[in-house]
Amino acid sequence: MEMLTRRGFIWQSFEIYGGMAGFIDYAPLGNNLRRKIENIWRRRFVVEERAVEIDTPLIGVEEVFIASGHATSFNDIAIECKNCNRIFRADHYIKEKLGIEVEGSLNAIKEALEYYNVKCECGGDFKDPAPISLMFSTSIGPGKGRKGYLRPETAQGIFIDFRRLLSYFRDKLPFGVAQIGRAFRNEISPRQGMIRLREFNQAELEYFVHPGEKRHENFKKYAFDVVRLLDKFDVEHRITLKEAVEKGIIAHELLAYFIGKTRRFLLEIGIKDEKLRFRQHKDDERAHYATDCWDAEVLLSIGWTEIVGIADRTDYDLNKHIKHSGEDLRVFIPYENPIKVKKRKAIPKMNKIGPAFREKAKEISKKLSEIEIEKDPEFIEVKVDGEVLRISKEFFEIQEVEEEVSGEKIVPHVIEPSFGLDRITYSVLEHSFDKDTVDGEERKVLRLKRVVAPVEVAVLPLLSKEPFTTKALEILELLQSAGFYTEYDDSGSIGRRYRRYDEIGTPFCITVDHQTFEDDTVTIRDRDTTKQVRIQISQLISALKELLSSGKSIEEFGIPFR
Amino acid sequence: MEMLTRRGFIWQSFEIYGGMAGFIDYAPLGNNLRRKIENIWRRRFVVEERAVEIDTPLIGVEEVFIASGHATSFNDIAIECKNCNRIFRADHYIKEKLGIEVEGSLNAIKEALEYYNVKCECGGDFKDPAPISLMFSTSIGPGKGRKGYLRPETAQGIFIDFRRLLSYFRDKLPFGVAQIGRAFRNEISPRQGMIRLREFNQAELEYFVHPGEKRHENFKKYAFDVVRLLDKFDVEHRITLKEAVEKGIIAHELLAYFIGKTRRFLLEIGIKDEKLRFRQHKDDERAHYATDCWDAEVLLSIGWTEIVGIADRTDYDLNKHIKHSGEDLRVFIPYENPIKVKKRKAIPKMNKIGPAFREKAKEISKKLSEIEIEKDPEFIEVKVDGEVLRISKEFFEIQEVEEEVSGEKIVPHVIEPSFGLDRITYSVLEHSFDKDTVDGEERKVLRLKRVVAPVEVAVLPLLSKEPFTTKALEILELLQSAGFYTEYDDSGSIGRRYRRYDEIGTPFCITVDHQTFEDDTVTIRDRDTTKQVRIQISQLISALKELLSSGKSIEEFGIPFR
Repeated sequence: MEMLTRRGFIWQSFEIYGGMAGFIDYAPLGNNLRRKIENIWRRRFVVEERAVEIDTPLIGVEEVFIASGHATSFNDIAIECKNCNRIFRADHYIKEKLGIEVEGSLNAIKEALEYYNVKCECGGDFKDPAPISLMFSTSIGPGKGRKGYLRPETAQGIFIDFRRLLSYFRDKLPFGVAQIGRAFRNEISPRQGMIRLREFNQAELEYFVHPGEKRHENFKKYAFDVVRLLDKFDVEHRITLKEAVEKGIIAHELLAYFIGKTRRFLLEIGIKDEKLRFRQHKDDERAHYATDCWDAEVLLSIGWTEIVGIADRTDYDLNKHIKHSGEDLRVFIPYENPIKVKKRKAIPKMNKIGPAFREKAKEISKKLSEIEIEKDPEFIEVKVDGEVLRISKEFFEIQEVEEEVSGEKIVPHVIEPSFGLDRITYSVLEHSFDKDTVDGEERKVLRLKRVVAPVEVAVLPLLSKEPFTTKALEILELLQSAGFYTEYDDSGSIGRRYRRYDEIGTPFCITVDHQTFEDDTVTIRDRDTTKQVRIQISQLISALKELLSSGKSIEEFGIPFR
Repeated sequence: MEMLTRRGFIWQSFEIYGGMAGFIDYAPLGNNLRRKIENIWRRRFVVEERAVEIDTPLIGVEEVFIASGHATSFNDIAIECKNCNRIFRADHYIKEKLGIEVEGSLNAIKEALEYYNVKCECGGDFKDPAPISLMFSTSIGPGKGRKGYLRPETAQGIFIDFRRLLSYFRDKLPFGVAQIGRAFRNEISPRQGMIRLREFNQAELEYFVHPGEKRHENFKKYAFDVVRLLDKFDVEHRITLKEAVEKGIIAHELLAYFIGKTRRFLLEIGIKDEKLRFRQHKDDERAHYATDCWDAEVLLSIGWTEIVGIADRTDYDLNKHIKHSGEDLRVFIPYENPIKVKKRKAIPKMNKIGPAFREKAKEISKKLSEIEIEKDPEFIEVKVDGEVLRISKEFFEIQEVEEEVSGEKIVPHVIEPSFGLDRITYSVLEHSFDKDTVDGEERKVLRLKRVVAPVEVAVLPLLSKEPFTTKALEILELLQSAGFYTEYDDSGSIGRRYRRYDEIGTPFCITVDHQTFEDDTVTIRDRDTTKQVRIQISQLISALKELLSSGKSIEEFGIPFR
């Protein structure tokens, strides 16, 4: 973390006002790194999936989170000291003080606190543990206003737009909808730097499918990838995804597909395969909405840490919103061949309805004939122009009719790969950090993948004077207008500058030296090997483009130097 | 707006729960459009300026906004009806009901309400007008927590990081720092769709300069651009930026530079020059922190509307944060040649201080010799290890000494171009909307610039059957993996599909027809001319790359067709 602050990756938020746990600033390099990771995610999880991306508000009206359950159930159990009034998250406190993993339920925590007679750090007694909401709340509009919350996940913004989205996809399943943006969680007592944030960045894909078709046409791409799985019984497997589905370890092919895709994505941006596993949620750990859920976990200095969750959320959320909003969020699935179905129906008697209801008659009879009847009712209630009318049995007769049914309406299921971008960014940094020995001295080097490097090329004049500086600035402008992320640096010895760029993970340094003025060449230095080659300035752009998008060696692009 | 909803640009937020004024959803096409505008902004205002981008929290601790003044002064004047209890923003209400522009001050509004005896729409009387805060507030942490606000602008996150940023730029002015992200303004009664939002997207550049050097090395790029200026006396000018600076209409070259750069950027993304002007804030309209401020205004269906503000915020914000945080946010500016200055100093008498203060003696004498003295004091107070010591005059003597001073510390000024991305996105859409006649029928067409089109290329099989569909999907995948924003559509007649893509501003349609299977060619259709050319599939990617990044005609890339 010290290096990350000093070099301009991550800063403590509100530092000059004493800071605040649970918030970080993305400094220039950290911002570039996270944005690059986001863009690769977009390519893999939006473009490749033929999904779309939307962007909905961070503030949500209360109704949304009453429906989703967050308004009442998004809680952690807290304990407050009677003496010093400090408040802690109970399960974390117990783990820290006793080294015991305790389930997050109120009862389990109560028992543990009593059994071990847990006291506050100050020696004081705790009040009874109680749930505390993790939702940030606010008020929209003047006066008392309307209650609002900061969203705890981007997903709800997608669910409530489902009808619009379905129509955008011309009423056909499956389809994916992504959102990248901030989410909030008012943690009780966050500590771990970038891992437990109150304001964080998510990238979520909601993939809507027919409940009976949890497959993906591109599963074959990852079917034979060997993954490390830790199932819900704590059994570890190193098997192919195909086998994991066949053995029933992973619930279905679609979850396995996203596990495979997630793994490839994480490797692409620089997570180490040997420090990556997928852990299945235990039955008592799963969120209320999920049937099967797998976390991508990476090994960090603080232990195994969740960075992605891949869940089958079923039809839970859509059903909740159907219930609370009264809107029909179902999808019409046509049968291949229409089928005949016998139904008992109320046949309106128009000669009676007409005189009795006048201009409303047409609408009433339409509504009546839509309803399927089970018993012989005394009356039927229909809603016309917002008004509920009770139509007594003299206005209709019950008949059995045969109808052709061309399809059915279903509530789709949703499979959700949900990425914690801050944790991923941090994990990439930790997995890239390395030390080696160069010229007999220890060197710190950030071995970031070329595709995510926040500064791709540094342009350095060998000496901080003319004509080196002007020439270097010319090359800088050339590279900038070609779209490269570059920096110029002329302060300190060339060796010290190389070290500086090694430390921030810049894959290539371009140096303008004496020979530049003889034959229009510069040197390119490779961060990992510290080797250099000479290359024509005119070939610089095409060489760098190829180098940055591949794993190629600089030796393919120039003549070895020194 | 109807078209924007139907075609998937913008949706009403929380629609299934009745909606909420002041919030919008970026639907798939609107999201792509805004992101593309953001990326062009980034290229122009970050990369080209050799600025950096950071990303700081949306929630801020109270201290930040007490310092900036927002906690107390970010208000609008509101009027509340005694009868129906509705609350309105006073100046908007007066303008709507009386057609009168009234200044936003409490007194002016009071007078106007009384003079015209303004009543509520319901007939009721209003209570006395009163300021209402536009800050969204929330609480951070458990229990009562710590007060926080949602940021009203991204800028403060940059100001409070100033010391870190200065060090990132190796202590040298000028430098620019950008931030793109959400900001919030709890409007009293927002109405105008995408124009007055409670949650909006900003792109801000804070450009820190020496107060005596408000110039830019690239001013020459825009010096001779003719711009339309409306000065603070309501006088309109159509003159070059150079002349506007020389005549003193624009306060200095640096503001003029950003006016020029902003104009070029807006034209690049599709704002019409004849509907663009820069309006100077009047003396009574400027924010408390600004000395000169110019708004870029565009002509929309609702009238002239501000979309960018370019302000000289001086040292206002940094001084506020210096005062409230106690941190030194000044920049050391070395003189070209050190100067000699005569000073009266307290020279410590070590033979007396040593025995009297023992281990503190060294620190005391160091502190004493740093202080400049005016009179002959009886004692001097110095702070050692947090303790204030009163050192009486027996421990030092006052002498006049000559010291070399190598520079001075100054508080930099900041010039801020601040972009309202939602308003800009909407304005681009309105300025691009057009109708013409094609084949005798009226056609709706969105003439978006190619660089911002949310769908760049549509791939269409002539007929919705084999082998056309498979071939079209092959081409789709080819284009997607080359990074193009594409869509595939096989529903409806080819003419209807062309219209659909005209309406969402897709510059090019690729059609797979019978001839495709004879000679591996497809047609490219140009949205604006509706003309088509035939082109080899193998040349598609390079042709589209060139077409999309230039204004070139499709005729340069293939053989005219039909």
